[in-house]
Amino acid sequence: KEDLIPRFATHQIGVSGLVIREDTGQVLAVQDRNSQFDLWKFPGGLSNLEEDIGDTATREVFEETGIKSEFQSVLAMRQQHKQPGAFGRSDIFIICRLRPLTFDIRPCSREIKACQWMEIEDVQRRSHFSAFMRRVTGLALYGVRHGFQDLDIQYEEMESVYKGLRYKLYHRPLPPHTPTHRLGQHQLQT
Amino acid sequence: KEDLIPRFATHQIGVSGLVIREDTGQVLAVQDRNSQFDLWKFPGGLSNLEEDIGDTATREVFEETGIKSEFQSVLAMRQQHKQPGAFGRSDIFIICRLRPLTFDIRPCSREIKACQWMEIEDVQRRSHFSAFMRRVTGLALYGVRHGFQDLDIQYEEMESVYKGLRYKLYHRPLPPHTPTHRLGQHQLQT
Repeated sequence: KEDLIPRFATHQIGVSGLVIREDTGQVLAVQDRNSQFDLWKFPGGLSNLEEDIGDTATREVFEETGIKSEFQSVLAMRQQHKQPGAFGRSDIFIICRLRPLTFDIRPCSREIKACQWMEIEDVQRRSHFSAFMRRVTGLALYGVRHGFQDLDIQYEEMESVYKGLRYKLYHRPLPPHTPTHRLGQHQLQT
Repeated sequence: KEDLIPRFATHQIGVSGLVIREDTGQVLAVQDRNSQFDLWKFPGGLSNLEEDIGDTATREVFEETGIKSEFQSVLAMRQQHKQPGAFGRSDIFIICRLRPLTFDIRPCSREIKACQWMEIEDVQRRSHFSAFMRRVTGLALYGVRHGFQDLDIQYEEMESVYKGLRYKLYHRPLPPHTPTHRLGQHQLQT
């Protein structure tokens, strides 16, 4: 099969941190200093080599806004091709739901023009958000109102068939009492 | 921000097709001819440049097994680093749920040693499946028994802020009557 395999990495992985204050119904929004678009967005950036998705999210949020946060789940994933700035590669962009651990914003003056806690309803009403950001904020609004149990994509760390390697597997949680789940747990120990 | 951006694509994207016969409770399983492990797996392979996830899944399933299928949803995603054969890059591996459109197996003799429709419960019992494959099959078993509405990660095609580009956004579906969703739809038209 060797001849059929692309001989290079085909994608960059971007990660955005949707930091949600469930107590106030606010999310952490930023404006990039150097973007060609005058849009608000959520803090985020490209994954470094060998960096887990959730670690990219919390790192970028801290670098851009000074807010410390904790990874909760993956909420959405976007695949886009031919996008400018992706060096001819395709782009996978992942939205992580984060819980804030601190609340005082200290934006990175080099990267960030503006940063604030913003009412989710305001995001939905404002024009300076892309359809993508409005949709993602819609997920946040649903979650704040009804809980995130219908939306969360959670992970479990598992052992690879390659000795010594571990990976993170993200999927929807199965109810803990399903026979399926028990089988899976049992087999993991054998 | 230029100096902070990794100057190359960091990930390869692999896709596996979980082809489920909901009428019989079977999934399509294969054994690779050239694998170092004597494990059964689900057909799949690496995405080509600019190929959508679902297209990779149906293409690889057809190439390896001769089965035509239709993309239904994303069920799971794995992120793994340092894995052999990934050329020093990290690996994102995505499991797609596919509905079979044909049923007669015609395996690719160059790549595939064995291929069959297998009872999901058999997969759970056999030893020649990795923990990863058992877990993923657990999702299939739950779905066949209870429906996939709790598990499916679905996509919508949306317009990029880059003129002329479109992308696919994958997330859990929101109930169509939520105010959130109506807002999102409305905003898309403005």
